Amino acid sequence: MKQYQHPTADQITLTGVLHALSDPVRLNYVQCVAQAACEQACGTIPTPVAKSTMSHHIRVLREAGIIHIRPYGTQSLISLRFDELEKKFPGVLTSVLKSAESTDGVEQKNA
Amino acid sequence: MKQYQHPTADQITLTGVLHALSDPVRLNYVQCVAQAACEQACGTIPTPVAKSTMSHHIRVLREAGIIHIRPYGTQSLISLRFDELEKKFPGVLTSVLKSAESTDGVEQKNA
Repeated sequence: MKQYQHPTADQITLTGVLHALSDPVRLNYVQCVAQAACEQACGTIPTPVAKSTMSHHIRVLREAGIIHIRPYGTQSLISLRFDELEKKFPGVLTSVLKSAESTDGVEQKNA
Repeated sequence: MKQYQHPTADQITLTGVLHALSDPVRLNYVQCVAQAACEQACGTIPTPVAKSTMSHHIRVLREAGIIHIRPYGTQSLISLRFDELEKKFPGVLTSVLKSAESTDGVEQKNA
């Protein structure tokens, strides 16, 4: 079974988190994961790009410490490391997700 | 006198702002500008990189809508577009700057 490496809370950097969230596809993916109440199977999250491109984006999010991936049989279950991020960078993820939600139209128009 | 182009508030995107803040040199520069009560002359802000590299970083910050540059004689005066950013993306810049301040040591260690 595939194992995934995750940074510890200590290893997560603010600039790494901001970089990971600075791509519209990744930000949109994080919004989808955040909306789910529990872990989501990787394939159930809608993505607008090719699978290989999405794999890259998911790796960036995992390596930045934003998402956690847990292998489960043939699937990978994704969850947001919300509590750890909020504890380390209070308000950052919350305000980014809130702004992303309210500016979705604008972002797409300017993308 | 050199004139600088700035995006209007409508043109500022969340991902553009996050990208601009995701570089340690740029984030540190924004912290310095934020600490000043008024416009600062470009040369008075300490920077750890070559002048040409810093010019690039400053352009990224200006084009993302984070800083405003006003020519004044032979100088360029820099200020943060804090109010516009806070209005458009409530809490984002505030929480990022607060986290940057409290994790400075960590960022430098991991940079």
